[in-house]
Amino acid sequence: MKQVAILGSTGSIGCNTLRVIETFNGEFGVAALGAGSNIELLAEQIDRHRPRLVSVSDEECALQLSYCLRERGVLPLPTIGTGVDGLSEVATCSGVEIVIGAVVGARGLIPTYRALEMGRRVALANKETLVIAGELMTRAASKSGAEILPVDSEHNALHQCLRGVERHELRRLILTASGGPFRTASEEDIANATPVLALNHPTWRMGAKITIDSATLMNKGLEVIEAHWLFNYSVDQIDIVVHPQSVVHSMIELVDGSIIAQLGLTDMRHAIQYALTFPSRRPSLLPKLDLTSYGKLEFYALEHGKFPCVGLAYNALRAGGTMPAVLNAANEVAVAMFLEEKIKFGEIPRLIRGACDAHTPQPVTSLDLVLAADQWARQWVMENVGVLQPESERAVN
Amino acid sequence: MKQVAILGSTGSIGCNTLRVIETFNGEFGVAALGAGSNIELLAEQIDRHRPRLVSVSDEECALQLSYCLRERGVLPLPTIGTGVDGLSEVATCSGVEIVIGAVVGARGLIPTYRALEMGRRVALANKETLVIAGELMTRAASKSGAEILPVDSEHNALHQCLRGVERHELRRLILTASGGPFRTASEEDIANATPVLALNHPTWRMGAKITIDSATLMNKGLEVIEAHWLFNYSVDQIDIVVHPQSVVHSMIELVDGSIIAQLGLTDMRHAIQYALTFPSRRPSLLPKLDLTSYGKLEFYALEHGKFPCVGLAYNALRAGGTMPAVLNAANEVAVAMFLEEKIKFGEIPRLIRGACDAHTPQPVTSLDLVLAADQWARQWVMENVGVLQPESERAVN
Repeated sequence: MKQVAILGSTGSIGCNTLRVIETFNGEFGVAALGAGSNIELLAEQIDRHRPRLVSVSDEECALQLSYCLRERGVLPLPTIGTGVDGLSEVATCSGVEIVIGAVVGARGLIPTYRALEMGRRVALANKETLVIAGELMTRAASKSGAEILPVDSEHNALHQCLRGVERHELRRLILTASGGPFRTASEEDIANATPVLALNHPTWRMGAKITIDSATLMNKGLEVIEAHWLFNYSVDQIDIVVHPQSVVHSMIELVDGSIIAQLGLTDMRHAIQYALTFPSRRPSLLPKLDLTSYGKLEFYALEHGKFPCVGLAYNALRAGGTMPAVLNAANEVAVAMFLEEKIKFGEIPRLIRGACDAHTPQPVTSLDLVLAADQWARQWVMENVGVLQPESERAVN
Repeated sequence: MKQVAILGSTGSIGCNTLRVIETFNGEFGVAALGAGSNIELLAEQIDRHRPRLVSVSDEECALQLSYCLRERGVLPLPTIGTGVDGLSEVATCSGVEIVIGAVVGARGLIPTYRALEMGRRVALANKETLVIAGELMTRAASKSGAEILPVDSEHNALHQCLRGVERHELRRLILTASGGPFRTASEEDIANATPVLALNHPTWRMGAKITIDSATLMNKGLEVIEAHWLFNYSVDQIDIVVHPQSVVHSMIELVDGSIIAQLGLTDMRHAIQYALTFPSRRPSLLPKLDLTSYGKLEFYALEHGKFPCVGLAYNALRAGGTMPAVLNAANEVAVAMFLEEKIKFGEIPRLIRGACDAHTPQPVTSLDLVLAADQWARQWVMENVGVLQPESERAVN
């Protein structure tokens, strides 16, 4: 039985991972679960999967969890840790072979790093890990021999397409982008878009932050950075094509002109199962993709003018060092402000560009340094949100 | 320098193979060329590539070739063989590593078989070889360790998609079909189609016979038989999907629900280069596929009622033994009669079905047996062409 630890078990990826594990009838065991404050759901997961070790956000949640578990008659109680230390214990729990990295935000950084240092396979759904600290993570993985298997549809598709491909055979990686809700909108409409409009994603149902990232296409920009670290190809070898149907999850173009694409339904359980059973592929009972049920598959060039966040991400990757961490943090704060209706949609890229322009990238030598850059960028955006003049007014002056 | 022999050097695949070889600046040498009666072109190829051995259809052609070569001042003259024996000498010419099998029709059978017996890589563009004698060919290849690399876009795509895939991981092969010129026509219009209409293929420019096969979709039926022998999957694991744009050259569906597709431009030089350089991929200067230049990619279910030839091919593969040889021969004769306007388009499948119904399949133990079945079927169609009552009249009786 392969032992699995899940960082972020009560989130969408975490819950789907447990569903996939259940279909394998005891082939995978759940050794450890890390969650935040969704104690009811975590207690249910513990009751069902009986991990030895769990972690929650703080002491209050830990007490609440103990109470819930006693009420359910779960015995023996698992060891309960808290905070980032607790998550790190989950990631490094003895006997674990596969760690699912699915906590949201920077909290996942240290636990994921610890798992990679130990040579464990990390199935990675946490975008920040590679965007902020790709250099550190991949260095740790290559030192210990750990594999990073991407659990998001695009990078998982690239991973599948790249199997058996020699480095010199690749011309470029082609990430597909749905184009988000504003694919056909005008630049002006996009600049003034409301949260309600921006949250209306055409193909995937996701959390608010990531849905806004899909509307600005920053999501795709961050994926370019991730792809760079995951597959070690240069920024110039990573392209984006807009594909509204999200059926082709991504593609690679080889030096001989051949394109290999991975297609599938938009269900994260496919990528999760792939990461669990890799290098083997195992039967899945999930619904099958029926290509004939789609009227058509379309492909468009990305309009960088309408979606400046993508260019900002490319620039941050080119600048290197701590710059992607600044990009990511500035984006997080700007998106939060937009969701609180404190800024307009069009100000998101403006604030990010401002933060990046104000930052001098440092080589990434430690997680602390990266987290300091992250903090600096958050502070910068909060201090400059009212200060930055909209482009329209600047044009007049 | 890898030595190449080309069976069918003056045809489309042969000429393109020489063009590809030229782009590799001496990495591949042309040891032997087999052609038919296009002596002018063959002389030009000999002048340029200086093979040691060539073959033409008969003595008259051989004399003509000697004359042409002397006129061009080609010295020393290559050895010139004739007929099937000459082609077999080309296929087994010493020092050759790769044999391109691109002669049209049954003439390629014995030479290809000889090359496979010798353990040579055969880049196969000749459909009949595997349709008629797949069992013999693949048995010879597996005994000698020879590789068969398909040089047609669909099977080449499958070959690319299947790299690194374990047998138990495959759910099905999915051949794409353009749907031909009658994709959207009514059954009645198809039955009464003229050669001019049928020869108007939407995406590929090919010879008359293969273009009619693309209109009846027998082409795709024959490809199902080929795919069975090339990749050794059961008939029930081979599907067809109609894809009018011919951009996706074919796909595989894996047991975990993932679909891997190969896409490219419709230029045979891609598949030829792949077969020459396999297992390595090498840069190509051919134009690149730009997905954004297509309005859309469409996928439709195959309408078996409109294209009965496909079902006939599946049935012939299920019946096994000599039945696919009968199917193929009956089709060849029926298509020739249609092109001569002796029968209607709708009579093509009727004649094939008649021949198959009248045939009791024998196990394939020798090429002679296969060729006898082929001859029998040709005879049967010629004798029964006027005899078989059209379905419309039968319905009245």
